[in-house]
Amino acid sequence: MAVQTKTKAKTTTIGKYLLDRLHAHGVEHIFGLPGDYILRFDKLIEDHPIKLINATRENTAGYMADGYARLRGLGVACVTYGVGINITNAVSQAFVESSPLVVISGAAGIEEYQISPKLHHLYNGEGLERDNTQLEIFQKITVAQAVLDNPATAAQEIDRAIEACLEHKKPVYIEFPRDQVDATIPLPHPEPFQREASDPEALREVLREVQKILKNCNRPVIWVGHEIQRYGLADAVLRFAEKYHIPIVSSLLGKSTISEYHPLYVGLYQGELSREEVRDFVENCDCAILLGVNLNDVNTGIFSAVLEQENKIISTSSSTEINHHLYKEVLFSDFVGSLCGLELNICFRFDHPACIDRSFPDFAAKKGKKITASRVYECIQKHLKPEHIIVSDFGDCLFGSADLLVEQNSYLSNSYFAALGFGVPATIGAQFALPKKRVIGLVGDGAFQMTCMELSTAVRYNIDPVIILINNHGYATERPILEGEFNELVDWKYSEIPKVLQKGVGIHVETEDEFDKALAKAFSTRGEYFIIEVELDKTDYSPGLKRFCKLINIKGKSS
Amino acid sequence: MAVQTKTKAKTTTIGKYLLDRLHAHGVEHIFGLPGDYILRFDKLIEDHPIKLINATRENTAGYMADGYARLRGLGVACVTYGVGINITNAVSQAFVESSPLVVISGAAGIEEYQISPKLHHLYNGEGLERDNTQLEIFQKITVAQAVLDNPATAAQEIDRAIEACLEHKKPVYIEFPRDQVDATIPLPHPEPFQREASDPEALREVLREVQKILKNCNRPVIWVGHEIQRYGLADAVLRFAEKYHIPIVSSLLGKSTISEYHPLYVGLYQGELSREEVRDFVENCDCAILLGVNLNDVNTGIFSAVLEQENKIISTSSSTEINHHLYKEVLFSDFVGSLCGLELNICFRFDHPACIDRSFPDFAAKKGKKITASRVYECIQKHLKPEHIIVSDFGDCLFGSADLLVEQNSYLSNSYFAALGFGVPATIGAQFALPKKRVIGLVGDGAFQMTCMELSTAVRYNIDPVIILINNHGYATERPILEGEFNELVDWKYSEIPKVLQKGVGIHVETEDEFDKALAKAFSTRGEYFIIEVELDKTDYSPGLKRFCKLINIKGKSS
Ligand SMILES: Cc1ncc(C[n+]2csc(CCOP(=O)(O)OP(=O)(O)O)c2C)c(N)n1
Ligand SMILES: Cc1ncc(C[n+]2csc(CCOP(=O)(O)OP(=O)(O)O)c2C)c(N)n1
Repeated sequence: MAVQTKTKAKTTTIGKYLLDRLHAHGVEHIFGLPGDYILRFDKLIEDHPIKLINATRENTAGYMADGYARLRGLGVACVTYGVGINITNAVSQAFVESSPLVVISGAAGIEEYQISPKLHHLYNGEGLERDNTQLEIFQKITVAQAVLDNPATAAQEIDRAIEACLEHKKPVYIEFPRDQVDATIPLPHPEPFQREASDPEALREVLREVQKILKNCNRPVIWVGHEIQRYGLADAVLRFAEKYHIPIVSSLLGKSTISEYHPLYVGLYQGELSREEVRDFVENCDCAILLGVNLNDVNTGIFSAVLEQENKIISTSSSTEINHHLYKEVLFSDFVGSLCGLELNICFRFDHPACIDRSFPDFAAKKGKKITASRVYECIQKHLKPEHIIVSDFGDCLFGSADLLVEQNSYLSNSYFAALGFGVPATIGAQFALPKKRVIGLVGDGAFQMTCMELSTAVRYNIDPVIILINNHGYATERPILEGEFNELVDWKYSEIPKVLQKGVGIHVETEDEFDKALAKAFSTRGEYFIIEVELDKTDYSPGLKRFCKLINIKGKSS
Repeated sequence: MAVQTKTKAKTTTIGKYLLDRLHAHGVEHIFGLPGDYILRFDKLIEDHPIKLINATRENTAGYMADGYARLRGLGVACVTYGVGINITNAVSQAFVESSPLVVISGAAGIEEYQISPKLHHLYNGEGLERDNTQLEIFQKITVAQAVLDNPATAAQEIDRAIEACLEHKKPVYIEFPRDQVDATIPLPHPEPFQREASDPEALREVLREVQKILKNCNRPVIWVGHEIQRYGLADAVLRFAEKYHIPIVSSLLGKSTISEYHPLYVGLYQGELSREEVRDFVENCDCAILLGVNLNDVNTGIFSAVLEQENKIISTSSSTEINHHLYKEVLFSDFVGSLCGLELNICFRFDHPACIDRSFPDFAAKKGKKITASRVYECIQKHLKPEHIIVSDFGDCLFGSADLLVEQNSYLSNSYFAALGFGVPATIGAQFALPKKRVIGLVGDGAFQMTCMELSTAVRYNIDPVIILINNHGYATERPILEGEFNELVDWKYSEIPKVLQKGVGIHVETEDEFDKALAKAFSTRGEYFIIEVELDKTDYSPGLKRFCKLINIKGKSS
């Protein structure tokens, strides 16, 4: 970073201010791809403590930044105008699954427009003053947008966008005309942002209600969702749960918000997709406290979750509801943060299953025995250590890995928006985010074929995740819904990919002992990425996918 | 296809009607990827004469369909809801560069919404009746949209969308709720579509004007653009040009609209980016007739094209202008189609350069001599035959191949929107479109890294294009604009890719004779795809890119 002399210290540039603010919020890497409209900004990053991570394409840059954001609280992707639009997949997913992602897009300079708006990479039709197409598209999938076309307001706009990202834990869009990057502005002194606050009266009222409900119930359960993780409220939930001894279940998207080794943790609840003891337990409670749960088809086991408890307390980032009435003026974080402050003279001591008591068969690899889907996860479980983080793409690897027992904040999935191809790049992004951890990506062959070559970026920056590729020869997850030629895939020789990338280790396994050995080797070797391809039979499904098949056979194939 | 009994013949289903209409318009392949919201439609294609081509991901499916559309007049891509949104790159490009692409997206069934709109792959916020997000995004990049949620109007809606695609030569969007695919409808009898017509008075008036201008000028030139190709008006232009002996130049995006072997064809005109004799010729004409040219930065050599001819006749799909006045009520195709009907007693016989007279050095490979960028294209020229079609991605391969002499309709490029990654999939799509031709894809290493694995689809369906990979070790086109670490790429061993895909031939060449031999082999061998990687020095630019460097050094690096 250039040393600024005293006289210069009172000004900065818009580009530098943007970088400094991101850095102040903990961003150390920006994932992106160059292009002429963003080149000046890219150049600026070269001289800044933040490091630019060059992806091979924009969509995967977005997934890397998303993985990073979920673990670090803020992620940034940076693309050129127009042609970077394939990042919309990643941004849509971040939007729907609440990942705090800042998208910075270069744009044509303000002066260039005066010559003609008919510039390459632009969508412009006839007679447009400024091409707003991309901005309008991003308005649909981000919670705030800022176009930095005015030096007088640029700094404010930057802060507004970053704050919106942090407040809503959803993507924001910053469009940066290239002739504004180096524009000088007076050094701003950003004040702590004034976030919305809860109405104190309403907050007291809702807490009194909760108190009353809890006093009158016998078997409460907390159902925790991904928003608790995103808003950093897991500790608050735990203090509350521990104080009164309330068992906790988790949504799939929220998996690992609470350590699954915690004695109060019961398991994943997904209606009829749950393991039976979890489902029985939850459905026999008399008070359900839902914190940050998105009640979508995936989290509810295609709406088979039964919420028939006598009392329901449901709080999300958008509202807090007690039974049938709604508190609009109570903020999610204030509500959840206040729960452990309640003073009740009770302690719920009732029997509940605990996830740690589940029987995990001691995995002993049988030599030469063809490995099956269910044994894959037993073997992974055996090797899993606190330093590991699992990132699961959508596919049978999600159904399978959902049953793994994991530590707090050590499991990421795109289990709701479910855009295949997230796995490999998000794994790389996660490895950038937490270099001391070892990140394990779980991906099906279909998903792998979409984005595997992003491992090039792991090579470039010496990033060493472990990819476990579940090769069940096609789109397994779709077969139970409707079978056809379209579920087939070309069989690649996946373990040859390191030869193309000229780095990394590719291992192909078919038997239990081969997989066992491969995991042991990969987990004990740092400095290189691994692809471990596990070859399974076409219709060898994980126990989780089998439960799913059963459910859709009941529900009808269309849903 | 199921044989229909007589009594059944009076009805069809919405899904079948859609397929039948596409088929009637010449569509034989649909490029796509399955997903639960589109599975039923995919299944329907299995039983239809149209063939479903399974891509590895949606974005490349879009590029394949775009390549197909540019050659066949209509292309179709078919994706599932939400997660297929990365097709927006391909659709944006098709929109901007006028390619008639139909995008079909599956969607949640109407009944499902009644349970809850919180379905996977959807963007929905709270309280939405129906998720319109994707529709609203596609409204920005398509000329018509249809949601097939009403059996009473579905057939009409289908016809309206397809007609809009054919009329405007731009993408349209069809959203298909999955529970409507098999809905029975009375067999429609689609009538020939009533397209807009020119006002006959206005048409006569503009033609009289053109006649007057032509009578009074000495050196007219026709500048032909891509819209002439898209609207199938090349023959009309040629008849007009030949009748009065008017020389023709072409825009870059319109390259090969007219055979470059035609004696009236002068060359590509791009202002200061043109070869000097072309530029001198055009800028010394006294009447410029622009037909279907998009006057954007690329086609005009960053606005260096000088349009100072005494008279200007400019017709595009949006308007027809004579000097400073505009005819709104004259259709592009009527105007262009009428030009050869003009009766003038003149014939312009003035000297003009002709592209065929250019000196193309007889390429004789020097054994062991390291090949250079300019020699690459000389060697390709030597091997080029009428059966070849070139598809060029953006990058130096575009600057280089723009100088090749090609036959009519045998050169495709994404030279305006310029989304890297178009090359490989569009080449495959083009090979599907015209199986008897041999399609040659030209791609840089950066672009290749984005989408090369789509060659998997070539393997799957036995498609055998030839990919010439210009490996200049990084983002060459960006280096002259701004140099930095971000222009570097990981060096892959590209010729090993066929080992991963288990089919195809990979050849790595560094010398003239190696390249010469590789081309000879690839062009004479059908049944397998080839990757010919040509290794160049980092800063070894094609003559075209060198002209570009000179131009931006004059114009300033930002533009
Ligand atoms: C980008 C994208 N395209 C399409 C889909 C639809 N889809 C859902 S599951 C699935 C099959 C996944 O196959 P694979 O990754 O091999 O995992 P498997 O189900 O075989 O375990 C598909 C295509 C999707 N979720 N995302
Ligand atoms: C999807 C996309 N991302 C970024 C860009 C910006 N861009 C323009 S040229 C270029 C470099 C192209 O490199 P390569 O394909 O290797 O071709 P070369 O210029 O080296 O010949 C880039 C990154 C783009 N055009 N498209």
